[in-house]
Amino acid sequence: MRRCIATVSLSGMLREKLQAAAAARFDGVEIFENDLLQVPGTPREVRRIAEDLGLTIDLFQPFRDFDGVSPTQLLRNLERAERKFDVMQELGAPLILVCTNAQPSASGDIDLLAEQMHQLAERAALRGLRVGYEALAWAPKISRFGQAWQVVQKANHPHLGLVLDSFHTLALRDDPLPIADLPGEKIFFLQLADAPWIDTDVLSHSRHYRCFPGQGEFEMARFTAAVLDAGYTGPLSLEIFNDEFRAAPARPTAADAMRSLLWLEEQMRSVPSLKTGVPHGESRRVQLFDPPSPPQLQGWSFIEFAVDASHAERLSAFLRTIGFKHIGRHRSKAVDLYGQGEVRVVLNLEEDSFARAYFEAHGVSACATALATTDALAALGRAEALGCTRMAGRVGQNELNIPAVRAPDGSLLYFFDVHSGGEHGFEADFVLDEQPAADTAFGGQARIDHVVQVLPAGQVEPWTLFYRAVLGLQPTSSMVMNDPYGIIKSRVMESRDRAVRYALNVSERASTSTARTVSQFGGAGVQQIAVAVPDLVATARRLKALGASLLPVPGNYYDDLEAKYDIAPALLATLREFGIFYDRTADGELLQLYTTPFEDRFFFGLIERRGNYQDYGVANAPFHLAALAQFREHAQ
Amino acid sequence: MRRCIATVSLSGMLREKLQAAAAARFDGVEIFENDLLQVPGTPREVRRIAEDLGLTIDLFQPFRDFDGVSPTQLLRNLERAERKFDVMQELGAPLILVCTNAQPSASGDIDLLAEQMHQLAERAALRGLRVGYEALAWAPKISRFGQAWQVVQKANHPHLGLVLDSFHTLALRDDPLPIADLPGEKIFFLQLADAPWIDTDVLSHSRHYRCFPGQGEFEMARFTAAVLDAGYTGPLSLEIFNDEFRAAPARPTAADAMRSLLWLEEQMRSVPSLKTGVPHGESRRVQLFDPPSPPQLQGWSFIEFAVDASHAERLSAFLRTIGFKHIGRHRSKAVDLYGQGEVRVVLNLEEDSFARAYFEAHGVSACATALATTDALAALGRAEALGCTRMAGRVGQNELNIPAVRAPDGSLLYFFDVHSGGEHGFEADFVLDEQPAADTAFGGQARIDHVVQVLPAGQVEPWTLFYRAVLGLQPTSSMVMNDPYGIIKSRVMESRDRAVRYALNVSERASTSTARTVSQFGGAGVQQIAVAVPDLVATARRLKALGASLLPVPGNYYDDLEAKYDIAPALLATLREFGIFYDRTADGELLQLYTTPFEDRFFFGLIERRGNYQDYGVANAPFHLAALAQFREHAQ
Repeated sequence: MRRCIATVSLSGMLREKLQAAAAARFDGVEIFENDLLQVPGTPREVRRIAEDLGLTIDLFQPFRDFDGVSPTQLLRNLERAERKFDVMQELGAPLILVCTNAQPSASGDIDLLAEQMHQLAERAALRGLRVGYEALAWAPKISRFGQAWQVVQKANHPHLGLVLDSFHTLALRDDPLPIADLPGEKIFFLQLADAPWIDTDVLSHSRHYRCFPGQGEFEMARFTAAVLDAGYTGPLSLEIFNDEFRAAPARPTAADAMRSLLWLEEQMRSVPSLKTGVPHGESRRVQLFDPPSPPQLQGWSFIEFAVDASHAERLSAFLRTIGFKHIGRHRSKAVDLYGQGEVRVVLNLEEDSFARAYFEAHGVSACATALATTDALAALGRAEALGCTRMAGRVGQNELNIPAVRAPDGSLLYFFDVHSGGEHGFEADFVLDEQPAADTAFGGQARIDHVVQVLPAGQVEPWTLFYRAVLGLQPTSSMVMNDPYGIIKSRVMESRDRAVRYALNVSERASTSTARTVSQFGGAGVQQIAVAVPDLVATARRLKALGASLLPVPGNYYDDLEAKYDIAPALLATLREFGIFYDRTADGELLQLYTTPFEDRFFFGLIERRGNYQDYGVANAPFHLAALAQFREHAQ
Repeated sequence: MRRCIATVSLSGMLREKLQAAAAARFDGVEIFENDLLQVPGTPREVRRIAEDLGLTIDLFQPFRDFDGVSPTQLLRNLERAERKFDVMQELGAPLILVCTNAQPSASGDIDLLAEQMHQLAERAALRGLRVGYEALAWAPKISRFGQAWQVVQKANHPHLGLVLDSFHTLALRDDPLPIADLPGEKIFFLQLADAPWIDTDVLSHSRHYRCFPGQGEFEMARFTAAVLDAGYTGPLSLEIFNDEFRAAPARPTAADAMRSLLWLEEQMRSVPSLKTGVPHGESRRVQLFDPPSPPQLQGWSFIEFAVDASHAERLSAFLRTIGFKHIGRHRSKAVDLYGQGEVRVVLNLEEDSFARAYFEAHGVSACATALATTDALAALGRAEALGCTRMAGRVGQNELNIPAVRAPDGSLLYFFDVHSGGEHGFEADFVLDEQPAADTAFGGQARIDHVVQVLPAGQVEPWTLFYRAVLGLQPTSSMVMNDPYGIIKSRVMESRDRAVRYALNVSERASTSTARTVSQFGGAGVQQIAVAVPDLVATARRLKALGASLLPVPGNYYDDLEAKYDIAPALLATLREFGIFYDRTADGELLQLYTTPFEDRFFFGLIERRGNYQDYGVANAPFHLAALAQFREHAQ
């Protein structure tokens, strides 16, 4: 299908917006009039710029409150429309979008509206233009597509049709399925926007919270499939207003926009047609994007840190105090491998490498993560199809070529194929000196449970879409955590079987743990590697014996635990002794222990999930964050 | 009255919070339990710290969901309460706050609740403690003070009383007046929070939007006066959760908190008692803060810019191209005076001065503004009473001593007494060389209409309170403006007769005009001086003749004006010729013209208000902001 984007979805001046849309390979744009009014060029010049970029201008949206007005006002509005038709002809835009009137005084009389829209369509027809009528969710009279359709049907003019917008329908929780029964050729245009469910008025919801399909919580595929069922074959067009996008650079936003459409098309493939029962992917009426399936993920193969020699020494010492052992050296590169249980950490101090460049930009930080998967090439193919950039490093003779793509923050995401010797098969590239014994501090079965990433403001949506589209993860929960210096928002994304889980943390306040870490990294980064161990108390005991630096937890916390839960005195004493956080739900229990941070950048969490506890101990977050703040204060 | 603050209102760790509360001269604090749990000290140590700071601990809030539970759960909750009573005795806190149960499963049976609260009060009594019961606005059963009062009345225990909270009552639009009929001695505690009216659920409203009295839109004085009417004589206590405060440094927040209570007490003075009709300020039951009245403001005497020699030259050239004349030199200081019409601008290049220090910190910027008032000493007295710091500079012999206070951003706010020779009487300190003639570009009647300040995120509330409390201004409107690079929020504050008006602009997005200017200034600053002129077209013509650099406006804007309004062709041509923005409402018309910015920092706006137009042309904001962005791009 043709793919379009409204210029209002992108930040900056019109030329930047058009360039960004073209770079992301959109076919065309909708122009919101303000974008045109604020540039010096004439409409004809704008058309030239778009043409030179290979973009059509599919739609123009020049005003509000046209319809349902008095006869005198109608004449003025028609006169105004004629001026806008002049502009459209110069722009080469064939379709004008007219939203239903949002004024309280507007009439809701279908006959009157039909008559007025007929007049407009008649004038448009004389110019060879078409009029699209869209129900605005907050219009007092005509707010649903069904009502707008009554007007269009009654007006019965070949140059008048409907414009549908997923936001306006879904935000009102209006049922989209009846769309399938509309005549497809009367749907002139389809606008798409997703959104989180927010308890606010629909106008604020629309103005501030719209996002690209896949970034929000609306049932986008179901809505869009209903439109396909009607026989619509026009463009899919993104119209998003959002405080973040208005402020983000246009090019990455446009790239994300394209990824969201591709993801949506793939989702629609499997939705069965309401009329034929055949999935839309199998019909031949429209072409839908068909990438390789999402990868089967089996956890992390390794996490790679960028270091220089002096940091390598310090980080190595830090890892050893928490039980990691040096288990190998890369055959051809200055890369060291550390491990314990099933966890592998790589320290890359190779000069003239991606890791070194990353180190120069971000300091000591995780520059790459490797996910174990059953088909690495398919995973790579999917990522590339969804607009990711493939990254290739130098590979020595007889060494593994592990495919990688660039993550949204510029770090690497490797796909390691488990057929190359299991999830640790990459160790073939290393000269191994010691196998990580089962008697390390974490224990033999220790494995990465989840990874906590800190993100700059505005980056949660792009990462959500990246993980959802590229890896097939699902957003499962959103939380707000109180740091002593401001709030932190967290969104959890999980693979279906929870083999891979990420928490995406963001804070707009400068002094929270999240924001300080973002500032240290100069961008996004891995703040916590949470390792699941079979027996956290035993692990804590061994860590203490090793002299590991564990984050202290105030005694008052345990006094409250005692008051809150019916907890065995011996267990309580142990939790208190080691500074272990505790949570309990109907499903089970969680024990959490944290190391102090390495140079105020990242730390390890050790967790033990008892029973079927699958959450993240958010009730303990304020105490963990306060303990981090307290530690930082004393470390200064 | 005693003044308290909840520790949860301030950011940081508990010791910082207590120090900030003491520095702001609070008498006592409420402690929210999480603040205690996250520190290493024992409750006894916390009590010692508070005592050393001269603070009492008036209330402790340790848990939720105590009441309306099953008999088994009640036993557990009572057991938990006993542990909390232990903590309270160590803290020396006499009162426990128990909110009504927020769980859907909670019972709303008044008899059951009364019985359970009676049991809790009985246990508290054995320890010499008291229990305060507070209706939580989002509790499913007991959400209003009237219901909580039924429980307290029925329980009928001397150690059980009500806690009232303005937010919980006003957010539900519950009528506070019946509070006046409650027995005052059964109101154990009063919590105060203001908020803007936001269309969201009450829990989000509470968690993210509470603010100090005077910073929001709730009728705080009416609510509080009803509580006084009941005979309440206990503390006024601030309990605020707010995303900004959680992130702002504790000390300025505490100072603001104190200012808000003082302001509220003054407001209450004039509210008549519902019982006696006598204003609360005249009763002797409680002592209410009684500062000098807000000043009568008559506009601006001058605006002072901090410059060094080289910037003075460039700024002087800029001022001359827009019609300002050099009209004098200070008798004893390196300070130059420029003027045209009624507008006065001072360039301060005195070394070893406040202005120089300001220049070093912020670059060329308005370091002081002087307001003309009928009683400068009273204005100063009020400001000091409300916690402002008086600032005094060196004054030469026979020179005027103009009182000044420190504004929230560290700039100076002068109060110039019009009895010292009218609003321009300060010119007595200058050797005048030329009177600003009426034939300058702006014209003889030109005067400052309003000043636009750009503020860092989180500073709108402190400034709102500062202007409201210290100057007696009122917030009149809030607007959202679309910059091509993100949204800008604007709040307008006006004196009653509109002689003084400010727009407070804030943007959390890095690349908007507002945010870039904040970043240039390294903090808040004056971005626009808007001057009202009698004939803007004539002014524009004269400015053009002078060679002034005016901000270009795209032709497309005028094409749209033509389509939008029935506007005389001659006027339209003139607007287009000079780049004048135009707006029209039922009240009148507005013409706006902007200079280009001086070194990307500040600019002059010229406006002509026709008829009774009193707004600010917000419809033109996107085009003005785009024009600024376009200019910046080309200037680079």
